[in-house]
Amino acid sequence: MIESSDDVFDPGDGGSAVLQTDFASDNHAGAHPAVLEAMVAANAGWVPAYGGDPWTANFQERIKEEFGEQAAGFAVLNGTGTNMLGLSLLLGNRYEAVICPETAHIATHEGGASERQLGTKLILAPTPDGKLTPDDVTARLHGLGVPYEVQPKVVSISQVTELGTCYTPDEVAALAETAHAHGLLLHMDGARLANAAAHLGCSLRALTTDAGVDVVGFGGTKNGAVLAEALIVFRSELAAKVPFLIRPSLQLASKTRFISAQLTTMLTDELWRRNAEHANAMARRLADGITDLPGISLRWPVQSNAVFAALPHNVIGELQTRYTFHVWDHHEGVVRWMTAFNTTPESIDAFVSAIAAALKSS
Amino acid sequence: MIESSDDVFDPGDGGSAVLQTDFASDNHAGAHPAVLEAMVAANAGWVPAYGGDPWTANFQERIKEEFGEQAAGFAVLNGTGTNMLGLSLLLGNRYEAVICPETAHIATHEGGASERQLGTKLILAPTPDGKLTPDDVTARLHGLGVPYEVQPKVVSISQVTELGTCYTPDEVAALAETAHAHGLLLHMDGARLANAAAHLGCSLRALTTDAGVDVVGFGGTKNGAVLAEALIVFRSELAAKVPFLIRPSLQLASKTRFISAQLTTMLTDELWRRNAEHANAMARRLADGITDLPGISLRWPVQSNAVFAALPHNVIGELQTRYTFHVWDHHEGVVRWMTAFNTTPESIDAFVSAIAAALKSS
Amino acid sequence: MIESSDDVFDPGDGGSAVLQTDFASDNHAGAHPAVLEAMVAANAGWVPAYGGDPWTANFQERIKEEFGEQAAGFAVLNGTGTNMLGLSLLLGNRYEAVICPETAHIATHEGGASERQLGTKLILAPTPDGKLTPDDVTARLHGLGVPYEVQPKVVSISQVTELGTCYTPDEVAALAETAHAHGLLLHMDGARLANAAAHLGCSLRALTTDAGVDVVGFGGTKNGAVLAEALIVFRSELAAKVPFLIRPSLQLASKTRFISAQLTTMLTDELWRRNAEHANAMARRLADGITDLPGISLRWPVQSNAVFAALPHNVIGELQTRYTFHVWDHHEGVVRWMTAFNTTPESIDAFVSAIAAALKSS
Amino acid sequence: MIESSDDVFDPGDGGSAVLQTDFASDNHAGAHPAVLEAMVAANAGWVPAYGGDPWTANFQERIKEEFGEQAAGFAVLNGTGTNMLGLSLLLGNRYEAVICPETAHIATHEGGASERQLGTKLILAPTPDGKLTPDDVTARLHGLGVPYEVQPKVVSISQVTELGTCYTPDEVAALAETAHAHGLLLHMDGARLANAAAHLGCSLRALTTDAGVDVVGFGGTKNGAVLAEALIVFRSELAAKVPFLIRPSLQLASKTRFISAQLTTMLTDELWRRNAEHANAMARRLADGITDLPGISLRWPVQSNAVFAALPHNVIGELQTRYTFHVWDHHEGVVRWMTAFNTTPESIDAFVSAIAAALKSS
Repeated sequence: MIESSDDVFDPGDGGSAVLQTDFASDNHAGAHPAVLEAMVAANAGWVPAYGGDPWTANFQERIKEEFGEQAAGFAVLNGTGTNMLGLSLLLGNRYEAVICPETAHIATHEGGASERQLGTKLILAPTPDGKLTPDDVTARLHGLGVPYEVQPKVVSISQVTELGTCYTPDEVAALAETAHAHGLLLHMDGARLANAAAHLGCSLRALTTDAGVDVVGFGGTKNGAVLAEALIVFRSELAAKVPFLIRPSLQLASKTRFISAQLTTMLTDELWRRNAEHANAMARRLADGITDLPGISLRWPVQSNAVFAALPHNVIGELQTRYTFHVWDHHEGVVRWMTAFNTTPESIDAFVSAIAAALKSS
Repeated sequence: MIESSDDVFDPGDGGSAVLQTDFASDNHAGAHPAVLEAMVAANAGWVPAYGGDPWTANFQERIKEEFGEQAAGFAVLNGTGTNMLGLSLLLGNRYEAVICPETAHIATHEGGASERQLGTKLILAPTPDGKLTPDDVTARLHGLGVPYEVQPKVVSISQVTELGTCYTPDEVAALAETAHAHGLLLHMDGARLANAAAHLGCSLRALTTDAGVDVVGFGGTKNGAVLAEALIVFRSELAAKVPFLIRPSLQLASKTRFISAQLTTMLTDELWRRNAEHANAMARRLADGITDLPGISLRWPVQSNAVFAALPHNVIGELQTRYTFHVWDHHEGVVRWMTAFNTTPESIDAFVSAIAAALKSS
Repeated sequence: MIESSDDVFDPGDGGSAVLQTDFASDNHAGAHPAVLEAMVAANAGWVPAYGGDPWTANFQERIKEEFGEQAAGFAVLNGTGTNMLGLSLLLGNRYEAVICPETAHIATHEGGASERQLGTKLILAPTPDGKLTPDDVTARLHGLGVPYEVQPKVVSISQVTELGTCYTPDEVAALAETAHAHGLLLHMDGARLANAAAHLGCSLRALTTDAGVDVVGFGGTKNGAVLAEALIVFRSELAAKVPFLIRPSLQLASKTRFISAQLTTMLTDELWRRNAEHANAMARRLADGITDLPGISLRWPVQSNAVFAALPHNVIGELQTRYTFHVWDHHEGVVRWMTAFNTTPESIDAFVSAIAAALKSS
Repeated sequence: MIESSDDVFDPGDGGSAVLQTDFASDNHAGAHPAVLEAMVAANAGWVPAYGGDPWTANFQERIKEEFGEQAAGFAVLNGTGTNMLGLSLLLGNRYEAVICPETAHIATHEGGASERQLGTKLILAPTPDGKLTPDDVTARLHGLGVPYEVQPKVVSISQVTELGTCYTPDEVAALAETAHAHGLLLHMDGARLANAAAHLGCSLRALTTDAGVDVVGFGGTKNGAVLAEALIVFRSELAAKVPFLIRPSLQLASKTRFISAQLTTMLTDELWRRNAEHANAMARRLADGITDLPGISLRWPVQSNAVFAALPHNVIGELQTRYTFHVWDHHEGVVRWMTAFNTTPESIDAFVSAIAAALKSS
């Protein structure tokens, strides 16, 4: 058993010190020990590259168990790449566009990858809570069939959203129905899909396959993997394109076994759910801890492992001298606090105390 | 100490059996145990994502030690991605093109990534041995400054080449001089740069920095890493672009520490060289073993960990029933046999015997 | 002298009848007779293609006279192409983005050309009147220099805007200063630049060269040409790129003389201004005519050859049975009425009467 | 009747003198007077932009008459644009590639438009005479269905080829069969399709519709138009995409009537054929004139309006002091002489005499 450590750690010659638990992002956490154990175990002998190995075969089986027989799983590298590969399956003609929330990761945090790599226009919908509605979609379809206009072809949503909120299975299904009724396809950025399923207490399948999603990226990295994402495709004619798109989409690992072994571990005995439930519970603990403090309020409902809170600017500044986290909206004084699979209750409690003290002395 | 194994291994429920040493590719080998150990050790506490961690700081230091103070190193994900990111640093205006050998990996094995992602034309030069010459370059510059023609801006070479041959430092320097004299930049795909330095008995720096290369990708994966490549940029104005290009180039790992830790390990006590020297020696052993066999001949000089041999089609077929390797040219009956850091002398000797037997009985 | 005709015309075998003056677009009008005369005159003998002809030399001289010695003019084909070519001069690295109003032609009416052809993200700013302000720009620069974010590189404005409003020379200059102060460049879509200069009573130069614009497209087609736009570049290092970008931007006419002859005609004795003044006057006449009618109101100030008016939906429907024009906003009942160089006062007066009658009977 | 003139012409203030008939390109010629007359006649009243006009309706009817009922014609702007729009109809998934001759215009003379605009790889086939064969195609299909390889989707040929040669209807049909048998589509760059039909004495339909071509660009400009190309699409599902691709492909003329009127003129009473026959006859006259001269030889068969000849370098230099033409291959001393619809027999005879004299005195 390899043990991870939350202690301050000095990596040796000249590196800066490693931080304690922070609240900046779930990808500041390390990896779950079982994931690294699985990678070590996968270092056994010679196997074909590019997915022709037994660990990838196992991973693909687990995907079918979790998402259904029609689901084809592909081991890929990072979140932006998963989104670009997934969208490239859905976009054919060079006039097709994507409808997504204004806050979508593909629109705001991927360095323009959609425009550059796919050459596609993102049609943005403002939302109060990061969640797209069927009405948001239909309001952006007026150009369908109109010459000289871009043609919406994909609806893209994030589950969990970038604001920490979740779509219910019914809400996803309603979007899929709306999309399909107009000839569009539904893409889901599931970088934190595990957290959504944990929050909603449902299966991954209920949120994707059964709700009519066409392609989803199931994030492993933020949930405890080292570096592993799964692209899951629910239509065979789309899955058939992956082998031709994965390489120019820069998402092909040569020693695929090391990615697949991570994903299989996450999908075994629902490690994904246990990790997500813990992270969610830590966010809930943090939200509960600050609920009655004066001068601070939750900005959006806490439905995953993110807490968005509004608090005075000077309190934010004071906390940032000791804790690492992102200011989401500098103007309005909104911060984002993320928890992870290995956030400890003690660290939450200490942080709540620090927040309370900072508010009091402000 | 974690130990790797070359034994046949059953990964458990339903996977196909793991193969013994094969000769298809150095990425069929597993990872060097020290690399996985370093990943496990890097799983310590919380650190900033995207490279703001001490392991990445260490990696960057090692790069400067190895390649010189002006070298900036970036931890990236795979070979095609390293090439695309590297080329995107060098290509500005949308009319710029890349001169490369007809056999270049970017031209033949990256699924059209250069055209799709960069929108650039590859101007191909036939070569006898995979190596571009200054004359090959100048012969393709007639359009420079000519309106309505694409403008060559980059010369791209692979070290080791796709045919297993190496450029000497002087040959690289001559290409750099030719490129720079005409306002072009020199890109090197160094997926097997370690094997070239090992073969030539020189430093990495002698083949890159000192020879005038502008950007090189230094491959880790084929040389014993799990999944790790280093993009090394020798001009500060180009390095300054990486933070803006790395994400839309899909080469940004969020938990960068796990990539950097691998690269640091490869760069510590010249593990890269020891691995490459072993792989090269195994290829040499194979080449020597078949040299006097009748009916088989080396297709190109063996200058790295690849052996290209021409032999009768029926012998190829016979060998493929028991060994995994690529047929490079079906028409001419040329095969490629690759060795790796963990290929054993015994496996080479057994393979040589098998080849001899197959030739004899053919 | 070739005469144009506004009479109903039957083009012969089977074509539908030609309409009378309509109010849908200035490109529904034909061409000014002098333009066609110039094309006929240019059909004289053999001359080099691609701009090496005397008509193009003349055109280039006229551009320098009108816009200043540093102005380089290029004869191109259509508005979208002019914008794409112009922007491609300004965008280098593949992470650069364009800030523009939400209503910009490049954002709304070019079929996704910016994303597809340039691979660039458009960062949209809502505006009350189609006009971008320096504050709109600076509010979108927070990502400048921030890793992993797109980097704004260009500010793009339309003069006249898509809502018929004009920037004053001072307003353009303020935008240029803001852009340049942050390392951005200023692009102007001048499809109706003539109408702006006519409205403001200033020179073309005052609105472009002297105001600090870096690249402008000067529209000929909407102002009376058959098919002719001029791309004008004010920096020599940018102009030097045009010969390499114009062909892959699909804006190169082989028999350039026929485009240049049109543009020279428009630039001779300020035909561009006379045409624009007439069109503007007709829009003013229309606006004045409806000003006191009950139930109708101007939506934006009339500063060019466009009148945007809000009126009851049933009145719109009634008018559309007899007149051709665009409904700009179906929800709010806003229409766009365009005039052209050859719109007659009589047609305006008749239209005003029709509007009045329709309002009355509604 | 408007008359063109081959006399030397001075366009006035400062322009360089207009040349006599030259042999550089058919687009150095002016336009056929009937084309300009038709443009003048089309300047009648107000009509909808973007093709909703009676001249465009007429043009579309003529296309059906000439190419068959299934043919949909679109009036576009230039040759490179016609190719890009045509190919973009045929290329869907972003891993698809185009097989074409090494000498194809799309590969050599379009400034990298295919790579930049379409993001597609061109797979080049060397040919002795510019003509692709079914074997050339099948030899490049080995990657079909192979993961991680680009997937050929289009075969693109030029009729007339860039070397002045023609495919017979049977040769085109054989290519179409080969392409279709493997799931590929056949694109034809018909910038000089008229010259091929004139040379072969067949209909346009025999070379396209009936031979199984999927999309062809029918060039007007080189054959006597001012600026007019027709994109003709033979499958309704492909034609349905044009309205969405034509604008971002920068090939949409707002005052489409002026393009359509030109094309209709070319398609009336086979003006296209008469022009092409004349140009071809002039090339034949030139070829015949030099056939028996010592020191000069035809490089490729003369099957259109181009004569490629090999002759001594000093003779080339001598002729270039008085005549304008392109040196096709500086190394081998091959020149290209083009004729046009208005090349005169006298100018050919004078040129032959000049060639003979230059050869004699060399």
